[in-house]
Amino acid sequence: MYDVTQIRAEFPILAQKVNGRALVYLDNGASAQKPRAVIDAMTRFYEEDYANVHRGLHHLSTVATEAYEGVRGKIARFLNAPSEEHIVFTTGSTEGINLVSYAWAAPRLEAGDEIVLSVMEHHANIVPWHFLRERQGVVLKWVEPEADGALDPARVLEAIGPRTKLVAVTHMSNVLGTLVDVAAITRGAHEKGVPVLVDGSQAAVHMPVDVAAIGCDFYAITGHKLYGPSGSGALYIRPERMAEMRPFLGGGDMIDTVTREAVSYAKPPMRFEAGTPGIVQQVGLGVAIDYLTGLGMANIEAHEQSLRAYAEERFRGLNWLNIQGNAPKKGAIFSMTLDGPAHAHDLSTILDKRGIAVRAGSHCAMPLMQWLGVSATARASFGLYNTREEVDALVSGLELCHELLC
Amino acid sequence: MYDVTQIRAEFPILAQKVNGRALVYLDNGASAQKPRAVIDAMTRFYEEDYANVHRGLHHLSTVATEAYEGVRGKIARFLNAPSEEHIVFTTGSTEGINLVSYAWAAPRLEAGDEIVLSVMEHHANIVPWHFLRERQGVVLKWVEPEADGALDPARVLEAIGPRTKLVAVTHMSNVLGTLVDVAAITRGAHEKGVPVLVDGSQAAVHMPVDVAAIGCDFYAITGHKLYGPSGSGALYIRPERMAEMRPFLGGGDMIDTVTREAVSYAKPPMRFEAGTPGIVQQVGLGVAIDYLTGLGMANIEAHEQSLRAYAEERFRGLNWLNIQGNAPKKGAIFSMTLDGPAHAHDLSTILDKRGIAVRAGSHCAMPLMQWLGVSATARASFGLYNTREEVDALVSGLELCHELLC
Repeated sequence: MYDVTQIRAEFPILAQKVNGRALVYLDNGASAQKPRAVIDAMTRFYEEDYANVHRGLHHLSTVATEAYEGVRGKIARFLNAPSEEHIVFTTGSTEGINLVSYAWAAPRLEAGDEIVLSVMEHHANIVPWHFLRERQGVVLKWVEPEADGALDPARVLEAIGPRTKLVAVTHMSNVLGTLVDVAAITRGAHEKGVPVLVDGSQAAVHMPVDVAAIGCDFYAITGHKLYGPSGSGALYIRPERMAEMRPFLGGGDMIDTVTREAVSYAKPPMRFEAGTPGIVQQVGLGVAIDYLTGLGMANIEAHEQSLRAYAEERFRGLNWLNIQGNAPKKGAIFSMTLDGPAHAHDLSTILDKRGIAVRAGSHCAMPLMQWLGVSATARASFGLYNTREEVDALVSGLELCHELLC
Repeated sequence: MYDVTQIRAEFPILAQKVNGRALVYLDNGASAQKPRAVIDAMTRFYEEDYANVHRGLHHLSTVATEAYEGVRGKIARFLNAPSEEHIVFTTGSTEGINLVSYAWAAPRLEAGDEIVLSVMEHHANIVPWHFLRERQGVVLKWVEPEADGALDPARVLEAIGPRTKLVAVTHMSNVLGTLVDVAAITRGAHEKGVPVLVDGSQAAVHMPVDVAAIGCDFYAITGHKLYGPSGSGALYIRPERMAEMRPFLGGGDMIDTVTREAVSYAKPPMRFEAGTPGIVQQVGLGVAIDYLTGLGMANIEAHEQSLRAYAEERFRGLNWLNIQGNAPKKGAIFSMTLDGPAHAHDLSTILDKRGIAVRAGSHCAMPLMQWLGVSATARASFGLYNTREEVDALVSGLELCHELLC
């Protein structure tokens, strides 16, 4: 039984007052809060177990290495990756996607080769490809969503041409909440011999993810959105692609031998992890994954879908409110604009006076904003600890915004 | 007055027993332990202040952004950089040096251009340059230390030729402890129009650092060695060099505008910081720097130099012990080998039974190991909380090693 009251009690920050009101944290799309278990595990690790990993024989180094390396398997199981050797630790999706861009794409894509991506990608899944456009003449081919914000896999597949070398697509839009059928996209792209990178930054937080079932080549997740620490994350890589990748960051741990004349590299996944890693953050991410697994991702999804349905019902009464994106399959993420001159930033500022945290801006998705024809939205993004009462608080706050701004 | 007993009480992990003995932590060269102030600040931040930075208008986002951005100035003052705008946040020296390699060196060095580096560099300051050798034909020119492990600035400057585009050199060897006169190297290199990158990973931990006085172009530090969290760090960049750098990691925060056709970039230093950063780690690093500044880097240096002198005195009695590197100016870092067949790993394992943590291996410095003619050393590296009694414990442990192994 999913007891949201009990769950909330496990997140210390949720007990806070902001501007004299109970905090209503609806900025989970930007970053999620952390349960006591995650915070305590990191504190305890620094107090009792800390040392550098991999290189030491002494007691603390062994303890730290075992805890750190144990997280690789947790992430593999969380994503249903066939083996923990397919998991590369990263500092988040941004580093993960840049790793693919620098280590796999840059050395193989030539001028005129194409990358297909959707208009609703996050900048993390756009700018690394713009680098390839600027630096080596790669062509970006953009696929627009449908009017309701859905992304039709057929349109993605139609965009694939003979020069297409990669499809890079989000699993869930951080602005519209749209859930993308990345399995269908991958099936179709693979039939044409084209690898697929999936940005799982949002989706992995809100639903069970199965990279084996999706079949994709790369799947990036980011720990700080997964109720884990900032600076943690991972990238799933299919072994065939991993074998094609050259090293990205150079330094300790990723080498086999170094001489003045040459260097040989460690086997993957270590080949792609240079230097002292984010030891304690990854340990914290492991605890966050245990926490999510304990609640059950399907239960989290059901809870958030019920919040979504309730929010949509409540929004229906606000005929001056526009929700950007209403795809049939979407997460509990609502990008809002008001009729009239009110700016999204004003919404955020007024809601903050009521203790309600939403994010205003372009949400690192400017091409989508351009497609929507807006400069910014105010985004309320729900997480596993949010409640119907918080939906009510949001609606009441929006009514105040309407009163003050329109 | 430098009260090491009181200081030790501020590091929770130092109260531990390892194998029934008081922990003697002499693996500070690999990573340092964290004071209570750093651990507590991160715990508190997750409990009370956490949100994503830069992009939000709501209360927590403002609080988090102010705390995070405040660290930039702390690092600038710690290194005596002229402005916090010269400081780029990184996850550590490895990322920092790779940033220089990818963003500054890769686009400007051509086949046959040279990089001068010392044989005692850490892999973090070798492998990124080997990448340029492998990928674009850059030539690495190596400078050997003197017999005692000192690095003669004149020999570094002699290695500079008309094709030299960069000198990359450590400020303090992580194996030998050698302090390098990077100010003299920089003066001489600049006279020849060659920029200088300094790997400050070790030096910044053990002594006051003044990048303005050194005059170098790049100075990399790593937080986890500075008594701060894993995954934190920074790179000082001279503005002239910063202006020459192209972006490295692409994603949110480092852009100004993104369209389907093009991207324009944020001003430095943000241009070089993509995606959600290591928010809480950098906040923790700020507290670590406050802690170090509170003790006084000159006091820390004096304490460690007194430990160095005492250790050297005690080692003098052990005529079967070889200390690799005895430069006149060096930190309290001792790379040890025994006469006879004993392997460094055996030393580490036996010392660990006595609760003494030293590191055995090549210390991410294989070219130096090759120059020394050893496959590995056992390294005892001292930090601000170590004591004379711990030197005694080490000596007693080494005597046991000699008894068992020789």
